[in-house]
Amino acid sequence: MIATVRPTLRINGERLNRSLFQLAEIGKLPNGGVSRVAFTPEDVLARQLVQSWMIDAGMTVRIDAAGNLIGRYPGLQPDAPALATGSHIDTVPVAGRYDGCLGVLAGIELVHTLQDHQMRLTHPIEVIVFTDEECTVLGCKAMAGELAADPDYYRRRDGTSIQDCLAKVGGDWSQIATARRTAEDIVAFVELHVEQGGVLEQSGHPIGVVDGVVGQHRLAVTVMGRANHAGTTPMDQRRDAMVAAAQVVLAVNRLAVETPGEQVATVGYMTVSPNAVNTVAARVDLSIDLRDLSQAHLDHLMAAMRREFAAIATQTRTDITLSETLHVLPTLSAPGIMTTIREVCQELALGHTTLTSRAGHDAQEIGRFTDMAMIFVPSQAGISHSADEYTAPEHCAQGTEVLLHTFLKLDAHYATR
Amino acid sequence: MIATVRPTLRINGERLNRSLFQLAEIGKLPNGGVSRVAFTPEDVLARQLVQSWMIDAGMTVRIDAAGNLIGRYPGLQPDAPALATGSHIDTVPVAGRYDGCLGVLAGIELVHTLQDHQMRLTHPIEVIVFTDEECTVLGCKAMAGELAADPDYYRRRDGTSIQDCLAKVGGDWSQIATARRTAEDIVAFVELHVEQGGVLEQSGHPIGVVDGVVGQHRLAVTVMGRANHAGTTPMDQRRDAMVAAAQVVLAVNRLAVETPGEQVATVGYMTVSPNAVNTVAARVDLSIDLRDLSQAHLDHLMAAMRREFAAIATQTRTDITLSETLHVLPTLSAPGIMTTIREVCQELALGHTTLTSRAGHDAQEIGRFTDMAMIFVPSQAGISHSADEYTAPEHCAQGTEVLLHTFLKLDAHYATR
Repeated sequence: MIATVRPTLRINGERLNRSLFQLAEIGKLPNGGVSRVAFTPEDVLARQLVQSWMIDAGMTVRIDAAGNLIGRYPGLQPDAPALATGSHIDTVPVAGRYDGCLGVLAGIELVHTLQDHQMRLTHPIEVIVFTDEECTVLGCKAMAGELAADPDYYRRRDGTSIQDCLAKVGGDWSQIATARRTAEDIVAFVELHVEQGGVLEQSGHPIGVVDGVVGQHRLAVTVMGRANHAGTTPMDQRRDAMVAAAQVVLAVNRLAVETPGEQVATVGYMTVSPNAVNTVAARVDLSIDLRDLSQAHLDHLMAAMRREFAAIATQTRTDITLSETLHVLPTLSAPGIMTTIREVCQELALGHTTLTSRAGHDAQEIGRFTDMAMIFVPSQAGISHSADEYTAPEHCAQGTEVLLHTFLKLDAHYATR
Repeated sequence: MIATVRPTLRINGERLNRSLFQLAEIGKLPNGGVSRVAFTPEDVLARQLVQSWMIDAGMTVRIDAAGNLIGRYPGLQPDAPALATGSHIDTVPVAGRYDGCLGVLAGIELVHTLQDHQMRLTHPIEVIVFTDEECTVLGCKAMAGELAADPDYYRRRDGTSIQDCLAKVGGDWSQIATARRTAEDIVAFVELHVEQGGVLEQSGHPIGVVDGVVGQHRLAVTVMGRANHAGTTPMDQRRDAMVAAAQVVLAVNRLAVETPGEQVATVGYMTVSPNAVNTVAARVDLSIDLRDLSQAHLDHLMAAMRREFAAIATQTRTDITLSETLHVLPTLSAPGIMTTIREVCQELALGHTTLTSRAGHDAQEIGRFTDMAMIFVPSQAGISHSADEYTAPEHCAQGTEVLLHTFLKLDAHYATR
């Protein structure tokens, strides 16, 4: 058992950053970005490379029914629950080389460092590559028992079934329930990730201690008006869906800006029908994305929105309907792990600040059944989901160092049964 | 010379309405509508049918370089300038059977009635089928000398050149200047048209005396913001193009609603980029369609809009740029012809009201070089550019009757040189 940081134990930052660049060769785009959407040949190839690195680091590897690739480094006490880390290596269609990958490769580097020093913790360590974080979030949801029962819910836009997708990465939809995990076998999960926002860079600190991952409501809103000739229809005889939709956009923005709190709300998607210069809009479809760390606060904002939309519908003589397309509950970090991460930062003399994750992560689902925390490192200019995504090599290494030493402390903190 | 209405001279309403239905067979849609876009085989076929009817009615026919099909019924004084009427037989992709066609077929019926009675006016009569009113408005613009010099301006969306289009209907782009007309050879132009709005039906009168055709500004507006993650970007760090665009929509609407006057303003078109649920909009493109009978009033509204957009851009930290895609000057009707139409209505015991045309028409361009007026008949429920467009047979006949007797009076009113 290790009670304090051993400053002599250091991860190999050069090896870590080399692996980030090597992984980014798979699905590399001409603009320097990476395209490695889940279940594509690039995703499969990347999984094979990561699997080989897990084995090099001394792990045994298995793939669960959800296609999650799980590397396991044995503990001194074989039947103890695991300390787990990991993230994802699938990407959005145009991505950089850090989002998800850093968390996976940091986990492998952590284990590789232990192996280099012929060390084992009391607890086994698991490094997990979660399946399809960027679209269906299927891998971590399967572990948390949060999957939809209907496989059609996970069908790809191109029509491919999730059964076929999972078969490509070694999963099996018919056995998906076996992927479920509990606090009995994963006692804690810590995910290292790039922030994907600009808060940390602005703070000047290299390490972010995440206090939770926000909950999210996504709504599809349809505004129905009446198509009319833009010349011959007097202003007072219109039921203009565009005017009503514009009021919806501003109501959503005003609620997010003026309500006390740190909520964010966005209308990022809008389509207009018939979308003709000389025709009053008959229909507008738009999306709302609303996020906050408090579900009670989200409920309050949702109720306020519904009231405002009803008033807009009456005033513009349109129909406004809402349907929820996504509802993710917030997940708070385990305070004990946050304290541990802060102690490690102090001992390693790394500046840190506390912040909230406003993007979804695999840790959010894992946190539904066991202790969870996240470590953030800075994203340059807050850019993410872009070929321009960048995190400095020293920040990648520092985050991994913090992850290693957090694991060393947690190994002492959590009882083995 | 005929100084008063001859109530005994009546058009053949049954023949007129039969021709409306026959013409609507060309390009007939399964839903009962008509699709006869300019320069398509349907347009060519319809022109041939209308040409045969012109000849039946005693007219000689020519096609000018702009593809305008011109039927001419000789006058008693051969070198007198013409009294002209007409409209168009091309349609929007899904149309009814009245828009444009009524004006053409009423003109032919007018001449047919004179021929039935072996009558000629002092002035020659021209019945004109204008080329492509619904898209480029090329036919009447060529007559008015208002065409753009660059033929690429008139290229179809499918890439077809205007040269090829005109060749299909007997026109010739290289000779387009020869299509130009003047007040020396068209002394007056009167167009009968369905209203395409609901004002006349609501008034309860069968005849609308049009006091002018509104001017129109069409603007393309681009709002440039900055794409950002909808979760990780705090509200106060956004440059949200969607929020700015919504303010633009409401500013346009507010100006039209609150400024004294009868102007209409519409944002009917909007596209958003990247148009993703979880991304703050980087760019929004939208259209503005602004119409009024007074150019001075339009200028005032345009200036007010520009001021408001500048304030919105500053407040939202976005860039808002405007470019004018269309600018049509208003055209006022000739008061003398309006008085004549009202006298005819009175003598025929037909109720009438004065109204403004808020849709564009061929008459608007012809009115730039000679006296112009328009006669409207009611559109049921104000529906237009739709398979559901409908004008009652008696209204079609009454409008044509008014057109005939207006011509008889104008023949006396206008000097022959």
